[in-house]
Amino acid sequence: MSFTEQEVELLSRQLPLWVEASKVRSAYGKTASYIPELAKAPQHALGIHLIDTTGTAVSSGDCSLSFTMQSISKVFTLILALMDNGEEAVFQKVGMEPTGDNFNSMLKLELVRPGIPFNPLINAGAIAISSLIHGKDSAEKSSRILSFFQALAGNDTLTYDMDVYRSESDTANLNRSMAYLLKDNGVLEGQVEEVLDVYFHHCSIQVTCSDLARMALVLANNGTDPVTGVTLIPRRYVQIAKTFMITCGMYNASGEFAIQVGLPAKSGVSGGILTMVPGRLGIGVVGPALNVKGNSIAGVHLLETISRELDWSLF
Amino acid sequence: MSFTEQEVELLSRQLPLWVEASKVRSAYGKTASYIPELAKAPQHALGIHLIDTTGTAVSSGDCSLSFTMQSISKVFTLILALMDNGEEAVFQKVGMEPTGDNFNSMLKLELVRPGIPFNPLINAGAIAISSLIHGKDSAEKSSRILSFFQALAGNDTLTYDMDVYRSESDTANLNRSMAYLLKDNGVLEGQVEEVLDVYFHHCSIQVTCSDLARMALVLANNGTDPVTGVTLIPRRYVQIAKTFMITCGMYNASGEFAIQVGLPAKSGVSGGILTMVPGRLGIGVVGPALNVKGNSIAGVHLLETISRELDWSLF
Amino acid sequence: MSFTEQEVELLSRQLPLWVEASKVRSAYGKTASYIPELAKAPQHALGIHLIDTTGTAVSSGDCSLSFTMQSISKVFTLILALMDNGEEAVFQKVGMEPTGDNFNSMLKLELVRPGIPFNPLINAGAIAISSLIHGKDSAEKSSRILSFFQALAGNDTLTYDMDVYRSESDTANLNRSMAYLLKDNGVLEGQVEEVLDVYFHHCSIQVTCSDLARMALVLANNGTDPVTGVTLIPRRYVQIAKTFMITCGMYNASGEFAIQVGLPAKSGVSGGILTMVPGRLGIGVVGPALNVKGNSIAGVHLLETISRELDWSLF
Amino acid sequence: MSFTEQEVELLSRQLPLWVEASKVRSAYGKTASYIPELAKAPQHALGIHLIDTTGTAVSSGDCSLSFTMQSISKVFTLILALMDNGEEAVFQKVGMEPTGDNFNSMLKLELVRPGIPFNPLINAGAIAISSLIHGKDSAEKSSRILSFFQALAGNDTLTYDMDVYRSESDTANLNRSMAYLLKDNGVLEGQVEEVLDVYFHHCSIQVTCSDLARMALVLANNGTDPVTGVTLIPRRYVQIAKTFMITCGMYNASGEFAIQVGLPAKSGVSGGILTMVPGRLGIGVVGPALNVKGNSIAGVHLLETISRELDWSLF
Repeated sequence: MSFTEQEVELLSRQLPLWVEASKVRSAYGKTASYIPELAKAPQHALGIHLIDTTGTAVSSGDCSLSFTMQSISKVFTLILALMDNGEEAVFQKVGMEPTGDNFNSMLKLELVRPGIPFNPLINAGAIAISSLIHGKDSAEKSSRILSFFQALAGNDTLTYDMDVYRSESDTANLNRSMAYLLKDNGVLEGQVEEVLDVYFHHCSIQVTCSDLARMALVLANNGTDPVTGVTLIPRRYVQIAKTFMITCGMYNASGEFAIQVGLPAKSGVSGGILTMVPGRLGIGVVGPALNVKGNSIAGVHLLETISRELDWSLF
Repeated sequence: MSFTEQEVELLSRQLPLWVEASKVRSAYGKTASYIPELAKAPQHALGIHLIDTTGTAVSSGDCSLSFTMQSISKVFTLILALMDNGEEAVFQKVGMEPTGDNFNSMLKLELVRPGIPFNPLINAGAIAISSLIHGKDSAEKSSRILSFFQALAGNDTLTYDMDVYRSESDTANLNRSMAYLLKDNGVLEGQVEEVLDVYFHHCSIQVTCSDLARMALVLANNGTDPVTGVTLIPRRYVQIAKTFMITCGMYNASGEFAIQVGLPAKSGVSGGILTMVPGRLGIGVVGPALNVKGNSIAGVHLLETISRELDWSLF
Repeated sequence: MSFTEQEVELLSRQLPLWVEASKVRSAYGKTASYIPELAKAPQHALGIHLIDTTGTAVSSGDCSLSFTMQSISKVFTLILALMDNGEEAVFQKVGMEPTGDNFNSMLKLELVRPGIPFNPLINAGAIAISSLIHGKDSAEKSSRILSFFQALAGNDTLTYDMDVYRSESDTANLNRSMAYLLKDNGVLEGQVEEVLDVYFHHCSIQVTCSDLARMALVLANNGTDPVTGVTLIPRRYVQIAKTFMITCGMYNASGEFAIQVGLPAKSGVSGGILTMVPGRLGIGVVGPALNVKGNSIAGVHLLETISRELDWSLF
Repeated sequence: MSFTEQEVELLSRQLPLWVEASKVRSAYGKTASYIPELAKAPQHALGIHLIDTTGTAVSSGDCSLSFTMQSISKVFTLILALMDNGEEAVFQKVGMEPTGDNFNSMLKLELVRPGIPFNPLINAGAIAISSLIHGKDSAEKSSRILSFFQALAGNDTLTYDMDVYRSESDTANLNRSMAYLLKDNGVLEGQVEEVLDVYFHHCSIQVTCSDLARMALVLANNGTDPVTGVTLIPRRYVQIAKTFMITCGMYNASGEFAIQVGLPAKSGVSGGILTMVPGRLGIGVVGPALNVKGNSIAGVHLLETISRELDWSLF
């Protein structure tokens, strides 16, 4: 299904105004500080790109901005891990539950048995997922991930932002701590540093809003790229990914996002948000200023506005 | 929309078999022990009732079994509190996030500021919600809740199981502890014992699967009873309730239920589950043997089977 | 043993100066706010009374100030519970370990099995201890406690500050929460409100520094009042009490107090501190302004000074 | 002061019997499993060595058994860190409080600000202390530690058990996790792996009961070796160490040990315990079978017996 006429009319008229109104919120957030490179992003930028299954696209705001996927990549490494290993093997290493804790919390890894990450979209879970990607070494694993992401985005030029990669790797003491705890809990296969190298690489893949929108479109279309007709992901794994995006996609603000927006989504600390209207639209958003939960403050506001105005909640 | 022909055909042929297959799981669970009266329920019972918007119903198994709503009532007291107070007032007292903890955990009430319950479907949240129901005293509040539930179920005879009420009230030291902590955190209005009296009353309302199915049908139909055409709940509040049922409805197994079933649902420790296919069906299930997370072990298995076979997941 | 000549000389010359120097610290603390009556105490007061086994006493500062014992009473209810029940029965209900948490934390009651309080000097532990005092009802229990305290202080006029008692009882939602959790964990015997009534009563017993010093002297003298020669406490129970005062007596600042002062001590949120030089001296201090851990900010500073100058640390 | 005549008489007659009686307890414990090499220790061994300030020694049981110091070393690295840096610098990196948690817990490092270890005797604290030892690299730091330990034990031949060192280093994922979390919290200076190398080395120093007793004797004698007359540690640092041994020396069984034994002590997961009668005796014990808290099950029982019989508690 394509955009409805009413949607096209409303979006072309209102979207720039909504973007302006949401942009104001950037002043109340701040760019991520824990990875030094991310702190350099333009705090007040805000862009959105929407694409429907016919390939029709609408965009507004700062859509030329490149940024790294960060946690958004976790949705697709989860999918690749499922494709590589099947559901049963994956869910022996990560659970299916939201945590209520910060995305980098280790409390439940110590308090709750078995000591597996509660879900694949918190940091601990995504690190466990990185260790499940097939490949003879970290280079091959990273290369397989990058190729998969390129196919999903329909963009052969996707690659790493090596400055962010290095910044991330150099300052990742908390992720290292988490990875060694996972290792001690028997969750991680392989060498910790190799697993982390895979993890830092996929977090550092550089995209624009239109790349995110294309990747989201494949999910919205149940795994088949509507532009090429090629099936990239089995439908069941799309279903799993979308469900996690509802329950855990926006860190420990996922519940609120589900109520105020009602769409499957995944955010990253670079300020990106990937979301979709299932069956119809892929959406990419970027706004580097984050709220206290680590989500784009302007991006969340913009999606709340659009979903409410166009009645897009699944619920 | 009514049942599809295919659904009717499949359900009439398969549903009794699926019920039998799921019933076997009851042996691996046990009835709730923390409220003595609940322990008396028939461990191996399993029943399901489905009703569509035309009033057509299908049922199988032990559908004549009466049981108390327990936590299922929390969905509807939340809605009544929203109708009484509006969104803003309600969400000053409870949050919107899943917790990852047991339904009766108090950890986050001590550890996370502000000390409000993370969501209205855990015990602490539902107690806070009980304090928001309008009425000059606990009797009037309880009476308003009962009337609302009767209207939703289209059943004027709904009433309390007073044995369960007394059993619950007498043994509720953990709920009392939680309520006093909420009081100390400034969350509860009014006297703790009065609030708890409202809470124990609505948990003790006695229903059958068909009552649950009718109540669910109103939610599935966005707040309007399709049988009578009467609008009982504003649509926005139905949306809020359904979203919470996805993210928090099955205690700390909500994430797994969303992945394996994919429908808004709420369970109770009596073994009841209320769920729905949005826009089409209301569903009530009962199976008193519980799994370790406090959900009906056979009921969850049955819903997994049906949702998978009929492809009912929202995702 | 009495004061040494050197101590007498040094104390008579320096003590008033040390009191003045410590008093200045009161400006950095504040009186307890969680019991409204306590907030009325004179923030800048500071007094100390020391008595040796010959009955010789030295005092300085605001020694006429009356205040309630609060948590200091927990040392002596522990002792009375030991005398009433023996070690084995008492240590089935409370543990022997410091917690590292705030004195009113409930985390470990939920997280650590069995769910008994870690020690008798945190609030949860002291409530459990109150339930172990013999007596046919709360009035008789309270009366037995008061008589015991009067004997220890050699002061028949010790009684309750009923304003504090009522203030405490009215605002004790957190203590109620804790007591109901203990009840649920199977720790508390009897009705929760009756146990709390005993607890609030002994917390509200009014004393002066000289009363505390006399009570401490009995402990310093291994259970026998050196003035009367009467043995009030078996030596083993004094040993237990003194050990707890070292490891847990100053809330979660006990470790620091042991290092900086090195004497068995117990503080209360009224600003009192009871401490001793084992074998020689009983000491009572009061200074209502508290530090963030809930101990008298000026009182702790004064005891650090005296212990360092007179080399009183046990270690 | 030397042994009293009564002590000599009682020990020579009873000690072998007490050792036999305590040895039986070994059956209820087990050797440490988390470091594979430690699991090989003789489960039923039990030995004790006591030495007084005149050099008179008494021993019984398996005193020829060599074992690694493990956590016992933490007392002396703390002292060396104090000697290298002074109190103020050390206590910016570690606190002074017992935790109530397991010795390898990370909960409080996440939950309590500032995120410094609660005390220097839990694993996290000891790792922080290792980073404070002076030396141009980990080899020099380790070498300074070894020399200090040799001086304290009056034994130039003390050295590492390299099998244990390697086993420890290879399996130390939890310690690595902790160290990276400390690094992230800003507690650790230097490279994580270098700090850990220092830590693993001092944990792997091999001793016998008589070595421990000699080291303890120096502490009992306030820092001066009574045999040589040489002052090895300033008295204030001995005082600090002894106080920590009372409040935190036996992991989260320190409170119970203080009540049942009442002497400053430090245990290690190899089954060693170093303790003392201040002013008079140094004591070394070994019994590899551990209780659930990680202390020698037979060793603790033996010390309870001796302290009770000879009335050695400080309290």
